[in-house]
Amino acid sequence: MSNNLLHTLELPNWLSEVLVENMIHNSDYEKMKFVLECGMKNIEKKSGGPFSAAIYNADNNELISVGVNVVTSQNCSVAHAEITAIMMAQKKLGTYSLEEGDYELFSSAQPCAMCTGAIVWAGIKRLIFGANKHDVETIVGFDEGPLHPEWKEEYKKRNIEVVENFMNDEAVKLLQKYKELGGIVY
Amino acid sequence: MSNNLLHTLELPNWLSEVLVENMIHNSDYEKMKFVLECGMKNIEKKSGGPFSAAIYNADNNELISVGVNVVTSQNCSVAHAEITAIMMAQKKLGTYSLEEGDYELFSSAQPCAMCTGAIVWAGIKRLIFGANKHDVETIVGFDEGPLHPEWKEEYKKRNIEVVENFMNDEAVKLLQKYKELGGIVY
Repeated sequence: MSNNLLHTLELPNWLSEVLVENMIHNSDYEKMKFVLECGMKNIEKKSGGPFSAAIYNADNNELISVGVNVVTSQNCSVAHAEITAIMMAQKKLGTYSLEEGDYELFSSAQPCAMCTGAIVWAGIKRLIFGANKHDVETIVGFDEGPLHPEWKEEYKKRNIEVVENFMNDEAVKLLQKYKELGGIVY
Repeated sequence: MSNNLLHTLELPNWLSEVLVENMIHNSDYEKMKFVLECGMKNIEKKSGGPFSAAIYNADNNELISVGVNVVTSQNCSVAHAEITAIMMAQKKLGTYSLEEGDYELFSSAQPCAMCTGAIVWAGIKRLIFGANKHDVETIVGFDEGPLHPEWKEEYKKRNIEVVENFMNDEAVKLLQKYKELGGIVY
């Protein structure tokens, strides 16, 4: 086991075609549209689950990182979209906390129990999500885990703004498409 | 950003001196003792926070993986001890879910909100921890995040056994030592 000190996570290759240097998306709409496009690509290319996320610098609207769910392809139950977006953003910015800046996380769906905790630790100031817990549980049958029933109050206490159900119709389509394609529910 | 599809996490080098092939620890006491030794080493070597974890195959008592907190050294707020132990175990076993087997996770301290979710997704069957939430919050001042107030009930529903405050005195010493050494609280 002594040579097993290194863990690597690889995001899908198709992302290199989608991402260019210094991408700017000037509105919440444009940001979420981009996130949902990445999620759709993730299921079409079968590189993971129907979940995608991105972190933006709210000061200049620059895209910092994109994350998609790569749980199955990377054999890693931790590799949810929000988690991979956070890891990539912190790697890029060379810090374990984004709280010095003004960073927002867009997610195609409501974060699960694990990701709800991870967003706090990451130093994110604003969370915007599309599909909600009910959509995720009823359309594709994923469990959201032991999520704090008053997680929104917990976010408020920590000054994290939440925008729920943003572009919900489009976000729900992503879940429906995954179901249609017969994606794995784990 | 196109070359940024790869994320790597490295556990501290001193672990290669601690780990040998097929380590067996035959009791909960031996397992937790080993976990706490790793946590102590992590703070002495200043490779991260005062938290350590290990995953064992409960069927034959074989150590599958060790994780330590490498948040600061790896610039990754996700890299808690439980998370790194889970990632390493799944990498080693080549699966995103440990639920087919009978795996137990020993943690030097009570998992935070994020890790409480992650343990469920990982397919762990039994959680054993040393220091509790109160110890962590009062001795070193770390926040446990938006933890579900009835997380134990949530674990029970999912058939995950919990052993709390196991070797609590020794586990608390690890937190006290970190404080004495002036470790960062983030």
